[in-house]
Amino acid sequence: MVAPRVYEALSQPLVGHLDPYFFELSEQVRSLLGHVYSTKNEFNIAVSGTGSSGMEAAVANFAEPGVKFALLTNGFFGDRIGEMARRQGAGVARLAKNWGEPFDPQEAREFIRRERPRVVAFVQAETSTGMFNDARPISEAAHEVDALVIADCVTSLGGMPVRVDENGIDIAYSCTQKGLSCPPGLSPMTVSPRALERLRARKSTVQSWYLDLLLLEGYYFGHKYHHTASATMLYALREGLALIAEEGVENGWERHRRNHLAFVSGIEAMGLRMHVAEGHRLWTLNTPCVPEGVDDARVRQYLLQERGMEIAGGFGPLAGKVFRIGLMGHGSTAENVLMVLEALESALKQQGYKPAGDSRAAAEKSLGATV
Amino acid sequence: MVAPRVYEALSQPLVGHLDPYFFELSEQVRSLLGHVYSTKNEFNIAVSGTGSSGMEAAVANFAEPGVKFALLTNGFFGDRIGEMARRQGAGVARLAKNWGEPFDPQEAREFIRRERPRVVAFVQAETSTGMFNDARPISEAAHEVDALVIADCVTSLGGMPVRVDENGIDIAYSCTQKGLSCPPGLSPMTVSPRALERLRARKSTVQSWYLDLLLLEGYYFGHKYHHTASATMLYALREGLALIAEEGVENGWERHRRNHLAFVSGIEAMGLRMHVAEGHRLWTLNTPCVPEGVDDARVRQYLLQERGMEIAGGFGPLAGKVFRIGLMGHGSTAENVLMVLEALESALKQQGYKPAGDSRAAAEKSLGATV
Repeated sequence: MVAPRVYEALSQPLVGHLDPYFFELSEQVRSLLGHVYSTKNEFNIAVSGTGSSGMEAAVANFAEPGVKFALLTNGFFGDRIGEMARRQGAGVARLAKNWGEPFDPQEAREFIRRERPRVVAFVQAETSTGMFNDARPISEAAHEVDALVIADCVTSLGGMPVRVDENGIDIAYSCTQKGLSCPPGLSPMTVSPRALERLRARKSTVQSWYLDLLLLEGYYFGHKYHHTASATMLYALREGLALIAEEGVENGWERHRRNHLAFVSGIEAMGLRMHVAEGHRLWTLNTPCVPEGVDDARVRQYLLQERGMEIAGGFGPLAGKVFRIGLMGHGSTAENVLMVLEALESALKQQGYKPAGDSRAAAEKSLGATV
Repeated sequence: MVAPRVYEALSQPLVGHLDPYFFELSEQVRSLLGHVYSTKNEFNIAVSGTGSSGMEAAVANFAEPGVKFALLTNGFFGDRIGEMARRQGAGVARLAKNWGEPFDPQEAREFIRRERPRVVAFVQAETSTGMFNDARPISEAAHEVDALVIADCVTSLGGMPVRVDENGIDIAYSCTQKGLSCPPGLSPMTVSPRALERLRARKSTVQSWYLDLLLLEGYYFGHKYHHTASATMLYALREGLALIAEEGVENGWERHRRNHLAFVSGIEAMGLRMHVAEGHRLWTLNTPCVPEGVDDARVRQYLLQERGMEIAGGFGPLAGKVFRIGLMGHGSTAENVLMVLEALESALKQQGYKPAGDSRAAAEKSLGATV
């Protein structure tokens, strides 16, 4: 859901991509991004493409051909990072878990120590499963072997503690349409000084000119023309980031946590199970299992057509098995929690499902308890 | 300049990137793009990035490593295509002219026949010089040797006859912020069936996952998830394209031609020369030479600060030598021609320049004569 102030920002008069005002704007975005990513990094930019372009920028710049690239994957987006790294000619070593199953910290550490890669990548918030992966064991082991750490923060930024510096993440990227309450179109990215140093020492040219981070550095910080970045999209992003700063980054996380816990209480009261184990769940995206005998496509169709509500289904090994229900950014409110629970329950009842208990009461109780 | 209806479109409520309504929207964009590109191609999409991402998509998909890539360049953006092709590992053969100097058709044909490349690229509308390059001799020779033709239409689409089919162009890309009167952020692209066939037969994987055209085909036409395209940007693009269709594509070209001719009449009356020879000029972007004794940076600063008007300077070999003045899309109006002439004349006078004659009268006469 896009915040009303962001919609307004989208129709502010456009300025050119080399206008002094444009660079004031990108400077504000740089500073706000540092705040929301909890980092002292100075290289904070919005790549001119969607979240996947940020993933490709991270991989294309740091996965030099022939380099060993260690990937920890337990979902679709982890696998996508591997696909991109292979296309760049990197040698990809994988530690893979079932979709939605956590990594054992010790196993993750040993994998990295054994492989001694130059780059380690993982997905902090896996949109395909609703799972949060802890950065700490990964980045500690990566730094022991002098590897850079890439973290996909597409579904965590703005809704959960990304904490780039504290977590030892070198390269993080995200999108605008989730925790930042903007339309899609940009990929906010932060890069550590250590990673930039590595990039400057890189031997081969980055295959992508469009996503070459040193060229982008020259543009955003050196004001040297590269491509025509969109002031319109940056107005929106600045507004989305300002909303977070005004609420307080940590207050925003707490709001997401509280609404997530209430949603889970309601789901469990209804008699549904969550796919991801407690303590590993995203606060932004919930993945209840589709109960026995229910067709998830019919549920989604009912919600879209009768309630104007778009939820996603599972895919890959989770096709037909989970719902993926986003409550994030501007959309993470107590009202939405109750509304979605009620609508989901109606959709399930349409297919003969009998709720175990009172989901609304459970969610309200949870909201009351965690206020 | 962004059209008011496009600003309105930007704040329409967002829908998801796999919503049925999203695909209705992308289908409308597909059809309108075919109309504005004057093509029967079915592969018309908007790449989720700026014009340069369209350039990179064209190059990365068709310049396979080791393949011979012939480039005709007479400006900055032509050189940029070469840089991208080299990064993709193609063998680049160049026919280069000075910035703003036309290709001799016979020389262009002979170059292509001699090199026998798999791909030929050129810039139809060179933003760095204000020059229009004729596609015909290039594409005729390219097709003789069974090469694909890539044309950069960044500054022609919507303002001049691109005529993809008639000109034998296989892959064309453009941007949204020039002739289409939208903010930057997407790259409208069209690909011929012949080029798609070549792409399907390609042996190596495209290095860019984000810009892999066959994956994008699966998304836009097969509705298989790839990335999260921005409905917001597509609303804007649809509106910009609809404005062109409502006016009539050819009427729009004629409007640009008429306003361009009037502007040139005014410039010449003022005593300035145009950098590009008559008959080779863009109707969208005018490049008068900076007169002797005038500092172009001061002119641009005056226009920006005193008149709120942004014009561009020359760069590379044309640094300090030309102004680059865009009058395109929604901004190509008789009123703007007269306003820019008056403002430019004031700026020049500030530096002691004495206009030769009455630029306003000359422009008005031209407008009257070509109505």
